[in-house]
Amino acid sequence: MISLTVDLGSRAYPILIGPDLLDDPRPLRQAIVGNSAIIVSNETVAPLYLERVRDHLHDLRHEAVVLPDGEAYKTIDILDPIYSALLKRHYDRHTTLIALGGGVIGDITGFAAATYQRGVNFIQIPTTLLAQVDSSVGGKTGVNHALGKNMIGAFHQPRAVIIDTRTLDTLPDRELSAGLAEVIKYGLINDVPFFDWLERHIDELLARDPAALTHAIQRSCENKARIVAADEREGGARALLNLGHTFGHAIETGMGYGQWLHGEAVACGMRMAAEMSVELGWLDRDALDRVDALLRRARLPLTPPTELDPERFRALMSVDKKVIDGNLRLVLLHGIGQAQVTAEFDPRALDRILANSAAA
Amino acid sequence: MISLTVDLGSRAYPILIGPDLLDDPRPLRQAIVGNSAIIVSNETVAPLYLERVRDHLHDLRHEAVVLPDGEAYKTIDILDPIYSALLKRHYDRHTTLIALGGGVIGDITGFAAATYQRGVNFIQIPTTLLAQVDSSVGGKTGVNHALGKNMIGAFHQPRAVIIDTRTLDTLPDRELSAGLAEVIKYGLINDVPFFDWLERHIDELLARDPAALTHAIQRSCENKARIVAADEREGGARALLNLGHTFGHAIETGMGYGQWLHGEAVACGMRMAAEMSVELGWLDRDALDRVDALLRRARLPLTPPTELDPERFRALMSVDKKVIDGNLRLVLLHGIGQAQVTAEFDPRALDRILANSAAA
Repeated sequence: MISLTVDLGSRAYPILIGPDLLDDPRPLRQAIVGNSAIIVSNETVAPLYLERVRDHLHDLRHEAVVLPDGEAYKTIDILDPIYSALLKRHYDRHTTLIALGGGVIGDITGFAAATYQRGVNFIQIPTTLLAQVDSSVGGKTGVNHALGKNMIGAFHQPRAVIIDTRTLDTLPDRELSAGLAEVIKYGLINDVPFFDWLERHIDELLARDPAALTHAIQRSCENKARIVAADEREGGARALLNLGHTFGHAIETGMGYGQWLHGEAVACGMRMAAEMSVELGWLDRDALDRVDALLRRARLPLTPPTELDPERFRALMSVDKKVIDGNLRLVLLHGIGQAQVTAEFDPRALDRILANSAAA
Repeated sequence: MISLTVDLGSRAYPILIGPDLLDDPRPLRQAIVGNSAIIVSNETVAPLYLERVRDHLHDLRHEAVVLPDGEAYKTIDILDPIYSALLKRHYDRHTTLIALGGGVIGDITGFAAATYQRGVNFIQIPTTLLAQVDSSVGGKTGVNHALGKNMIGAFHQPRAVIIDTRTLDTLPDRELSAGLAEVIKYGLINDVPFFDWLERHIDELLARDPAALTHAIQRSCENKARIVAADEREGGARALLNLGHTFGHAIETGMGYGQWLHGEAVACGMRMAAEMSVELGWLDRDALDRVDALLRRARLPLTPPTELDPERFRALMSVDKKVIDGNLRLVLLHGIGQAQVTAEFDPRALDRILANSAAA
């Protein structure tokens, strides 16, 4: 078992990574402080893993809330079944919420934990690659609004992240690729050796080689933990983690939540950020070709949906949490491993790549 | 103008108290950091004070969201008009939300600010006595759930609390009395000289004598600021501020939100806590008589509604944020000015006072 730490002082917590961690009660029990828990999962994941988690809680008061599966359900209304389950049986402030599922379940459960009785403990058990390498770490929780993705939420750190790599055995191929988008993101932001490694091992990852997947998860979590520890509330460097996300959120919101997987939208968004960086003269074309090739090999989309014309795309991008006092900030690239958050760019470069995409 | 500070380190903020503060743009403008703001108010308060606040924002991008008035509307659904207003016109992370109204508006607006884009600034302009002496200070925000009061929420401190004492001129008598319940609470918890002062000046307060009201507001805010600074997240002493609230919340939830004013329910709850303290032999009957006399002079209810039988009352009390691992904790009195949070009491004392109330 690999153990990493997200170093947030008194709120530091472990990320545990290994095969069959769900068969071991100890990682879960060590992170529970009270004598009750509610597991939140979805209709896809619950039949696979819920009983194994429940077994570890047999001597605690506990129950499960099983939600429908999908980004389309990540709305404020989905919180009510969780709040109602908690209140009906008087779960108190010492209750722990356990998120068992992908990024959507983690975000919803974390937000419910952040807001039930003004905050209770929660634990992340991510079962998708995307959740394991990104969304389960760092304490961003929340739900979507019809007018913008992740616009309602809170920072609320988990007490532990428990990653059983065997859960990836049941992950659909499309979800595996979507997770790889966030893995590739860390290489692009500031980890050139990891990007090089990914170029050499992408086929093993797609073939679900356990050693390769474990390395990719560990390296991704190390990158994320370091950035979050340095900037928990995204006052600065943490915004780098949004590489591809302003473009990607526009695609997700514009197409309707759940049509594109988050990782697919982020892949396309990273490609657009790279293309815009080339337009600005910040990134050379060879680097863009490497980005394209790696995303393509990971079976990820490179071009945005033709349904979104440039005007609509721009309007959707302007609803972004990185907009400050009306200025759109983007994460752009000066090279592979050299991302920068900036509002200092020629806006015509954005016009051009949106027009290119529409013409494609 | 009186200026107090809630000393929370980097998140310290001022409480400003004075007549006609709403005529002065400076207190408000000094607390706004970005270049946009949304004022949240209700249909009762907006016609009285909204234009005066808007005048101070004339050079900022701003708008107002006017909600229906009353505790019955303090639900998670009421947040949507606020989120939608923010998102429709792309208000960003540097937006400030301004709560202009009583405790309900403050709680709702604070929770919207805590959760919009994972947290934006907000300012409290409380216009009821209850909000001025209690709910606007300390960062507790949230909404009710059908199954429990204030069960969904967050800690989110305002950047400033601006108390224009003249707004009390328009406050209905019933609301004034309700506010006095929370004022009396501070004396009962740990401020004997203030309790003595209230006994001497209660008639002036009811007659809205400006000097008496200002003193009562200042002294209440001093008490609250001190307790909050020592225990922001209610790990310990802050729970004392819930004197009367476990009983009171049971009345509010059981009768339907808005039937009893919060302060009325708290007054009755404090009286029940005092009576239970007498039952336990912790408080002498003379002290209970003083509590009764002061609450009665303040025109506050002393007995709970007969609609709630002891069994139902007890069930409602068990949904309380102070319940830990199944144990009901209450704030009880060893004397006037000597409150204690404890789960160490003979439960039959609670049975007896609930039975007494039902028989009354």
